[in-house]
Amino acid sequence: MLKYMEIAEQIKQTIIENDLAQGTKLPKVSELIQEYQVSKSTIVKALNVLERNGIVYQIQGSGIFVRRNTRVGYVNIIQNKGFTESLDQFEITTKVLLLEKILPTEEIYTHLNCSPDEKVYHVKRLRYINEQVLCVEESYYNCAVVPYLNEEIATKSIFNYLKTALKLNVSFSDKYLHVIKLSETDSQILGLAKDDPALLTEELFYLSSGIPFNFSRTTYHYEHSQFFLQTNNLSV
Amino acid sequence: MLKYMEIAEQIKQTIIENDLAQGTKLPKVSELIQEYQVSKSTIVKALNVLERNGIVYQIQGSGIFVRRNTRVGYVNIIQNKGFTESLDQFEITTKVLLLEKILPTEEIYTHLNCSPDEKVYHVKRLRYINEQVLCVEESYYNCAVVPYLNEEIATKSIFNYLKTALKLNVSFSDKYLHVIKLSETDSQILGLAKDDPALLTEELFYLSSGIPFNFSRTTYHYEHSQFFLQTNNLSV
Repeated sequence: MLKYMEIAEQIKQTIIENDLAQGTKLPKVSELIQEYQVSKSTIVKALNVLERNGIVYQIQGSGIFVRRNTRVGYVNIIQNKGFTESLDQFEITTKVLLLEKILPTEEIYTHLNCSPDEKVYHVKRLRYINEQVLCVEESYYNCAVVPYLNEEIATKSIFNYLKTALKLNVSFSDKYLHVIKLSETDSQILGLAKDDPALLTEELFYLSSGIPFNFSRTTYHYEHSQFFLQTNNLSV
Repeated sequence: MLKYMEIAEQIKQTIIENDLAQGTKLPKVSELIQEYQVSKSTIVKALNVLERNGIVYQIQGSGIFVRRNTRVGYVNIIQNKGFTESLDQFEITTKVLLLEKILPTEEIYTHLNCSPDEKVYHVKRLRYINEQVLCVEESYYNCAVVPYLNEEIATKSIFNYLKTALKLNVSFSDKYLHVIKLSETDSQILGLAKDDPALLTEELFYLSSGIPFNFSRTTYHYEHSQFFLQTNNLSV
């Protein structure tokens, strides 16, 4: 892990362990340099990461302050770590409905930027949060990047497997959200009625090399899911 | 505007004007320093802003590359600029349904961190995108921060008024998303049927001083709205 990411993680842990309230002033940059024994640029980078993650806010000339998310049980839709990491205070379990190697449809090979005759993994999974159905997810993995998957891996965290076993670096994603009426099939899978509301997300994940390797379509149970994100004014 | 935000904006404009494709390699940091005649730290900060906004991605040891959002007409849910700025390629119009000064309910004064006997502005507006109903929005403004509002202002961009007339710096927000079935009242306002699906967002906006000043509840027409966000791996 990069040094500034390590420091960011440590500052975050300090905030959580001491249960610091929103608006609590953190030590000055010069004090943080002393405390963590790293360079100013490392501290500045770490604070920027924390700001971007909605963990602190910085007021120029005034200091660095704690920012707390006040509601629990919301899925952070800005993270791309997969549920297993982002909802770690909840029990996330998974049932694999389907795992097969198929030739991609035009939609899939276009998204994954691969050739029509390169096979892809097609995985359909039901995810549970504290034993309630959270979502049904249909995922396609480029086999050139992910040459092997099995049901045991898919029952746990596929992203964790990519990181630890395949040493792949999931770097960024494009996520699209739509609100829809449930189809007959999906309503049965989720235990809801046809035409009940649902959030449908489509997400394309990239490696740090810029290569797209996973396209996922996820349909959320509207009564068991809620989402949050924190924005800041760094947008251009 | 801060220098690095200016440079970020200029690099973004260069990408848009030249219609650079996803994956296009940008000049090296040293070349950007030459081109924009600014310090290395300004370029690094500008690139970080662009990365955070999903406009470029950086591969260590390899370079800076263009990242393009491939779908148009999606609301960027990570921005906190209001629709008028974030959907600037579309015609956004507004109809004010209600504008009054009221005593806040407990929910509102808790969110706005004000006293129960301080009045707040209550604004209810219908927003249209290209003449189709996009959403109905119910907003509460702390009068201590926003002492004056009228229908003319509310018909245009309230956030633009806060920025230009009141010189307020909207800095960050917490946003919560739920998928719901429409109530009778909201379905009539949106021109949909009761129990049709909708995205409900609740958002609390803060000034750069950390003071919450606006709480908004927005219900989106599911057929006329779609959302996107770009994530990256800077999360801790």
